[in-house]
Amino acid sequence: MEQQSTLPIHSKGDGDQPGKAPPSQPPAEGGAAPPSKSALKKAAKEKEKAEKAAKRAAQEKAQQQASEAADNSKHLYGPIPDSADVARITNLDDLSEELFEKEVTVVARADNARVQSAKLAFLMLRQQGKKVQAVVAASEEISRPMVKWTGGINVNSIVQVTGVVKKAEIPVTSATLSHLELHIKKVYMIAQASHMLPMQVKDAERPPPESVDEVETEGQPFVTLKTRLDNRVLDLQTETSQAITWISSGVAQLFTEYMLKSGSRWISTPKLTGAASEGGAGVFEVTYFKRKAYLAQSPQLYKQMCIAGDMASVFEVGPVFRAEDSNTHRHLTEFVGLDFEKTFQSHYHEVLEFAEDLLVFILSELKSRFKKEIEVIQRSYPKAGDFRLPKDGKALRLNYMDGVALLKEAGVDVSEQEKFENDFTTAMEKQLGRIIREKYDTDFYVLDKFPMAVRPFYTKPCPQDSKFSNSYDFFMRGEEIMSGAQRINDAKELEAAMTAKGLDPNAEAFEDYVGAFRQGCPPHAGGGLGLNRIVMFFLGLPNIRQATLFPRDPQRLRP
Amino acid sequence: MEQQSTLPIHSKGDGDQPGKAPPSQPPAEGGAAPPSKSALKKAAKEKEKAEKAAKRAAQEKAQQQASEAADNSKHLYGPIPDSADVARITNLDDLSEELFEKEVTVVARADNARVQSAKLAFLMLRQQGKKVQAVVAASEEISRPMVKWTGGINVNSIVQVTGVVKKAEIPVTSATLSHLELHIKKVYMIAQASHMLPMQVKDAERPPPESVDEVETEGQPFVTLKTRLDNRVLDLQTETSQAITWISSGVAQLFTEYMLKSGSRWISTPKLTGAASEGGAGVFEVTYFKRKAYLAQSPQLYKQMCIAGDMASVFEVGPVFRAEDSNTHRHLTEFVGLDFEKTFQSHYHEVLEFAEDLLVFILSELKSRFKKEIEVIQRSYPKAGDFRLPKDGKALRLNYMDGVALLKEAGVDVSEQEKFENDFTTAMEKQLGRIIREKYDTDFYVLDKFPMAVRPFYTKPCPQDSKFSNSYDFFMRGEEIMSGAQRINDAKELEAAMTAKGLDPNAEAFEDYVGAFRQGCPPHAGGGLGLNRIVMFFLGLPNIRQATLFPRDPQRLRP
Repeated sequence: MEQQSTLPIHSKGDGDQPGKAPPSQPPAEGGAAPPSKSALKKAAKEKEKAEKAAKRAAQEKAQQQASEAADNSKHLYGPIPDSADVARITNLDDLSEELFEKEVTVVARADNARVQSAKLAFLMLRQQGKKVQAVVAASEEISRPMVKWTGGINVNSIVQVTGVVKKAEIPVTSATLSHLELHIKKVYMIAQASHMLPMQVKDAERPPPESVDEVETEGQPFVTLKTRLDNRVLDLQTETSQAITWISSGVAQLFTEYMLKSGSRWISTPKLTGAASEGGAGVFEVTYFKRKAYLAQSPQLYKQMCIAGDMASVFEVGPVFRAEDSNTHRHLTEFVGLDFEKTFQSHYHEVLEFAEDLLVFILSELKSRFKKEIEVIQRSYPKAGDFRLPKDGKALRLNYMDGVALLKEAGVDVSEQEKFENDFTTAMEKQLGRIIREKYDTDFYVLDKFPMAVRPFYTKPCPQDSKFSNSYDFFMRGEEIMSGAQRINDAKELEAAMTAKGLDPNAEAFEDYVGAFRQGCPPHAGGGLGLNRIVMFFLGLPNIRQATLFPRDPQRLRP
Repeated sequence: MEQQSTLPIHSKGDGDQPGKAPPSQPPAEGGAAPPSKSALKKAAKEKEKAEKAAKRAAQEKAQQQASEAADNSKHLYGPIPDSADVARITNLDDLSEELFEKEVTVVARADNARVQSAKLAFLMLRQQGKKVQAVVAASEEISRPMVKWTGGINVNSIVQVTGVVKKAEIPVTSATLSHLELHIKKVYMIAQASHMLPMQVKDAERPPPESVDEVETEGQPFVTLKTRLDNRVLDLQTETSQAITWISSGVAQLFTEYMLKSGSRWISTPKLTGAASEGGAGVFEVTYFKRKAYLAQSPQLYKQMCIAGDMASVFEVGPVFRAEDSNTHRHLTEFVGLDFEKTFQSHYHEVLEFAEDLLVFILSELKSRFKKEIEVIQRSYPKAGDFRLPKDGKALRLNYMDGVALLKEAGVDVSEQEKFENDFTTAMEKQLGRIIREKYDTDFYVLDKFPMAVRPFYTKPCPQDSKFSNSYDFFMRGEEIMSGAQRINDAKELEAAMTAKGLDPNAEAFEDYVGAFRQGCPPHAGGGLGLNRIVMFFLGLPNIRQATLFPRDPQRLRP
């Protein structure tokens, strides 16, 4: 550490500047009047006071220097030396009773630091949400300056601590590893945090007040979701966020794993497209050199072109862009799409069953592979642990009209839906979710055979009843996570369907797409999942932004 | 098939419509003048002619009807019936001698169809590049109309064929499965292609003329790369494209596999950003509701923010956007980035070694898992099979200055490089690649310790010599596939480095990024790979567009 004078600034140089009147003496007004008696007396007193202060300061300085000279712990703390021992770093997660009385070295954040006395300081260490208390006590090896320095570490700094693992005499309730302590032998600064943080990670550890209806918060400081998202890097450090980001990673992993195992090919379709083919509204416009490009609203047309290109089964994990001014709990302007498209032999239900099994695989593997993370999240969001899956491992599949009937049975006005012209409202979907949970004991289910009128132009009508279509939606806790269908694969049928929807199949925007079918394309079906929605609904999080690393909505482009 | 009358339209109803004059008789003009002698003669002749025609037509009709009645094969060909047997579909790949004399059903494209005689037609079947010849011969079961229909199938249509696998008496040289044939018993149309295709898949099977310097093409039709890319869906159907897209899929798979195994977390960072943080040039501008957004040029700043958010090790597979007007063989405006970022304990070489092992893993696994695909590509691009990897499984690592020395030794003028202010030119990189292949027998290698002056602001300078930096590039066949470095993790150091590069660390664009470091961030390093470049250089393809599903460059936004 750099040595700094501890003399108080205001006393510096008092009496050391000859020819300058002490500041307490008022400046002479209108000529050099002799000082009054009382003024002289006051000046003498001031001088005495200043001398005393200087003396005391000098004494303190000497003491400090003596103390520092005597600080035989200097090599045990401070900025990390180049020669620091890094042989073996233990994760907080691996600290256990088996290590009692053993020496370990950990690298972690200072969650909190405080000086208890001149001889004792506490340092709460945090690593990806896990916390353990470290103690530093003055002793023959450990100096008081080391204790003071340790207790003064800025919160959130990253430190390397070597110490002995001990049983905590009294459980440390504020630590996650409450039954043990680390008795510090060395403590080095790896990366210092500013002493002012925009929010405290421990405050962000509690769920935001917008979603506390089910969690006790009694009088603790609140951090709103907005503040947390504005300071997302700190927010990511909470144990809950750490666990959620692992679940997100897991969904992408499990989707990919299942698709690759099935023999599907990983594709990456362009996000910059020459035309707003899926409809002009809701598409972001890009300045592309001297012309315009558009951000893909989904890989829909491209993945179908891959099927026409004989790729048989394809999937993609990639961003999806929606320029929709929707400011809801479940809409984003950019999210992660999990898309797949597959040929089938005789019936689109081959693909539908494949997709159902995919979801059952993802959701049940999440439960088993991420048990610990789910438990962590459950402390803040109690629903996280109660997602119900069908007992027999097969998805529940109902027809759209079965859903209408269930709602009708429950007294809901479904007259609009019975006309086959309107989809369910969000409220209806949620209620249907509750009904199905009650009746079938599952939070994941599929509705098949949606009315043709509510589906996009490329959807294959149901051959038995053209009011309906060979299309399906997947739901989790009554909210949609996937939309899919058999697609029209015959060029003439596609052209007619487009014309019927008011689209021009000969427009330049569709030239490549329709052309692909004119060249012969096998029957196929597919779907597009929203990764963030799967995470949100699986964990029962109140807001999709909590299931998104750096969320984007009409208001938010930062951080 | 629906029965249609084959009577010529113009003869229909001749003599069948009483009270109506035959059409050959001209209408009376200006009152009922008696017909002239010659006119009568002509009319009689016409009548005779018409009667003859009608007779002939009736005869033809009768013949046709007889023939159709006799066509006892009608249920064996034509549009696929709903009741078609789909129990078991065999892939062309699985056809082998073991199936000789067995009946199989395949679904494939008509690569070619031709009628040899009234009794014999050939149908070349193609499936993801594999080809087998099918033969249909008139017999007791198989009618002549069935032979005719089969030989007339539009090229590229998708058909379902049931037949018996037979040994080919003479090898079918135009088929990839030249030693066997399929003797057709049933053939159904699944998806009909238009009879006019913009290019033939078999012509696209040969490498484009721009890159034929090493492949024999002798007089065969050429398809330029432009035509192939304009008709990418047909181009994807070639055996070569099929194999290349599998290699692309494999690179993404192997990268993900290695990262997940190492305990890294899969992240998805936003592509829509509020500021052009990595530099204003080269960034695409997006109209974002009533303001501007920018497409991310890389996940660089966000993946570092994840590290600051205690995520320890992260990776991403996602699109990267570059608004650079570069029209070269290896530049795209959108490509697939494979990014990773990782903390380390004491030295950035921990991460560098991790990345080297990652590349050795990807490249050696490609060689073993995609042996068949590489063999296919090798037929068009001979370099595909000769990519050399270090024998000991450890990457070759040289310092940048070692590279300079090797070039100097070879007589190259490296005076600019010796001033530590310029990176290698592309020509120098390629020459260095050749020198290293010669000397070290490897096509993959790493250069470490690049001059500080040629690296971005967030690069950590080399502590031993600030002219250099803790940064590295990865090369394949002398072309760069990855750039990476240790990053500055101390806020004050970062601010100074930005100021030195003329950037304002307090600018709004950097608020979130620099803020992340002010809150404490562990030491870390990482890198960004270009998936398309890995595929291109691994296979020795002459153009990056051949390694990209739907390439984007300054000229191309379609298909």
